[in-house]
Order: sequence, then C-alpha cells, then structure tokens
Amino acid sequence: MSLLENIRIVLVRPIYGGNVGAVCRAMANMGLVDLALAGATADLDLQEARKMACGAGAILARRHDAPSLAEAISDCSMVLGATARLGLYRQHARAPRAWAARILAAAHHDKVALVFGPEDNGLSNAELELCTNLIQIPSANSYRSLNLSQAVIICAYEIFIASGVFEPAREKSVAASAATKERMFAMWEQALLAIGFMSADKAQHMMLGVRRIFSREGLTEDDVRILMGIARQTLWCARHSPPPDRLAEPRPD
Amino acid sequence: MSLLENIRIVLVRPIYGGNVGAVCRAMANMGLVDLALAGATADLDLQEARKMACGAGAILARRHDAPSLAEAISDCSMVLGATARLGLYRQHARAPRAWAARILAAAHHDKVALVFGPEDNGLSNAELELCTNLIQIPSANSYRSLNLSQAVIICAYEIFIASGVFEPAREKSVAASAATKERMFAMWEQALLAIGFMSADKAQHMMLGVRRIFSREGLTEDDVRILMGIARQTLWCARHSPPPDRLAEPRPD
Repeated sequence: MSLLENIRIVLVRPIYGGNVGAVCRAMANMGLVDLALAGATADLDLQEARKMACGAGAILARRHDAPSLAEAISDCSMVLGATARLGLYRQHARAPRAWAARILAAAHHDKVALVFGPEDNGLSNAELELCTNLIQIPSANSYRSLNLSQAVIICAYEIFIASGVFEPAREKSVAASAATKERMFAMWEQALLAIGFMSADKAQHMMLGVRRIFSREGLTEDDVRILMGIARQTLWCARHSPPPDRLAEPRPD
Repeated sequence: MSLLENIRIVLVRPIYGGNVGAVCRAMANMGLVDLALAGATADLDLQEARKMACGAGAILARRHDAPSLAEAISDCSMVLGATARLGLYRQHARAPRAWAARILAAAHHDKVALVFGPEDNGLSNAELELCTNLIQIPSANSYRSLNLSQAVIICAYEIFIASGVFEPAREKSVAASAATKERMFAMWEQALLAIGFMSADKAQHMMLGVRRIFSREGLTEDDVRILMGIARQTLWCARHSPPPDRLAEPRPD
C-alpha cells in the first residue's frame, strides 16, 4: 500500500465543499490517502465537505493546506495536471490508463501529484506549466466536462487497478471438465427419455439443443452437480409413475 | 452511437436527488442517454437533481419512471446488477472492465440494463434475482462502498472506453527519426564545443550525457526543430563573441 500512499491528490482553488468531500470518499475507495488543497479560500464549506466525505473524514482531516500549487507539489517528482480542454500546450495529454503504469513506477521512489483545477475553469496556463505531464479523461464530445470528484475517481480507479492491490472475487467452484459434463448429459438424456419428452429416434437431435443451452456460458462443477441432481430426481419420478400418455414432440429450430 | 443508446442506467429507489443529477451528468460524459428510475418516491428532490445534472438536464427530463425494477428492465436481455457486498449469490460478480465487451456485444441487438440499488443498502436479494449478471467495482477493502454516481461513472466509463467512440488526442508532430536526431546531436556537439562547454577530448563522453537527457522520453519532429534552433543560434553567438576565457569542466556522474 505504500505505493498508493506516495500518490497525492491536489485540488487547486476548489469552490464547493461537497466536491472536496466526495473526492475524499473517492480516494478512500481507491486506496489513496494524501490530499492537498492549494489556494483554497475561507469560503470553502468544510462542513459540507465532511458530510460528503462519509467514512473518509480522516483524509479530509489529515489534508495539507498549501497557499499555492507550487508549494503543494514542491516535494513531487512527477506532477500530472488534469485538463478537459485541448489546445496549445495541451496536445500532449494522455488518458489515465496510459499514465497509470508510469505513475506507479514513479511512486516506487518518489511522491507523485495528480492536480485538478477549480470547478469552473480548470487549471490556468501558469499552473499547467508546473505539471510535468497532462491527463485527459476520455469523455463524449458533446459533454466533455466531468464533475471534479468524478474526474478524481476515474484517475484514482485506473491507478488502483494498475497497482494490482485488488484481487477480484474468485469463482469458488472450478469450471466443469468435459468428462463431468458428458456424464451429466447422459443422465439428462436418460431422464428426458423416461419422462417422454422425446422419443429414442429424436434423442440425438434434441440433445444437441440441450447441449447448446448448457454450453453457451460454461458450467462450473457446482452447476453440474445441480443439473445432475435434477436429472436423477426426474428419472426416479418417471420410474415410479405410470408410463406417459403421449410423447410431446417439440420441434427445435 | 446507437450502441450506447441501447444501454440503460436503472436507479432503484434512489434516495438523494443530488445523486440522481450527478448520475445524469456522468451518463452524458460517457455518451449514455437512457435513464430509468424504479420505485422512486415523491420524496426524491428533483430540483436538487436538476441542479447537479448541470448540462445533462435533458437526460433527467427524458427519464422513464417505473414502479418497480421488473418493469424498468422488462425489454432488456442482459441485466447487470451492481453490488458492493460479496456473499451467497454474489460470488459470480465480475469487474466492469471484464463485462464491458459483453455488454457492447449484447447492445448491438438488444437493450442492456445496468442496475444500481439505493444509497443505503444496495439491491435486495429479490432484485438481484432479476439480474442476469453481477458487476462489482474494484475498491479498497478498507472502504468498499462508492457513492452512487461514482459507481455509475466507473461502469459507464469502462463501456465508453471499450466502445472505441473516443479518439484520443493525437500528437500533431510525429516522433523524430533517428537520422533527424543524429543531425541535431551533431549540431549540439558543434555548439557546445564553440561555447567552451566541453573540450574536444571530452566531447564524446559529454555527448553521451546529452543523448541520455534527450532520449529518455522520445522527441517529436517539433521538439527536434526547437533543439536544432537553440544549437544553431548558440553557434552563431559563439562565432561572433571573443573566445571563451576558460573551459567549464563539469563532471557527469
């Protein structure tokens, strides 16, 4: 986790306390802890920030308040500025996913800053000059401008994913082997014959349809156990009931 | 864009109007347009929703209000439920990135729904039963629960990226060729000799340091033009000034 601890989120002249709080929560969700506010004024509603931070109030409480961006990033080697606009000086911007590996590599040894401008106008050109790299979040041409905390969580999410800290939930049951599935299909064939769902001469054709249904997404060993249980019980019932009156004759395709 | 138009965001019993508005903005940022609210009550603050939607008020205005989740998704083939908790029935959840390609493939022909539960407790088990697949957003074990609109934007962002709709900004200048760079290094060598920065016998060693600095991140043709201009002008000045008093002898390494 020390890798993620070396990554600082810097909010430059943030306007809305609610956004600052939402940024804290987003950081906590993605394993980040180091927040700095640069040039925030006394107008910033810290009570609203605490409310929106929910369980991440500790990040807000431990934030560093710096008078300017230059001071907030003075100990950082890589400084990435987020920009929604493109233009002169901004054509070298890359997407968060493209930077994530570089950011983590730098965070092995140094402090890295991700810098976000105020809600209304973003970072000034003078502030962009202090950035070593530019980040641009992919978004629809018809509405490029993201809410501040949304921009932060997408950058933080890409870094969190790239860090490999998160282990996705594993399927508890492994994928069923071909041999297990063949035993299951044999049991289904027997059961479907016994209940009169198909006649022996149609069995091969109908079983192709059954195989197609159960093969589409793959089955786990647990799934196969359920399906075998159904076949076994069906067969038991069929053997203890009078012979079916007539054969249903569904026509596949 | 019709692919993204087939993807519906369904908010089940949302509590805070501000979150609903933030979801609209997030959808607009990521090219989505189809919003449904399922089982929303009259307590939902739609004025707050309109405020937080910013430029995405049209999505809020065109939303579909359904009495229940079942009705909100009745025309959808693939229904993905977002869940933060893991447990029985939830072990098959996969990350948004793992589903994105499948979601887009389904959206070619059918409506797809992404379903998000209320802010306090998420989707109920009965609601999860209506979902064909489960999404789980990777997050830090210490604080798993994302704000509703943050959860929506991460899912929408992964789908938007996978859709290939977004074209990243292209470097206007192509990467410099080896031949161009060799001409530039030759000019720098000449200029650095002329200004007395290095003596002829140290030139090869010093030029290795210069090459290292300029080779680290790659240079574009535009970059090389700037660096050639500096060398050319330096050379001109050196030739029009008296010979340097002494040779500076910086020692690399």
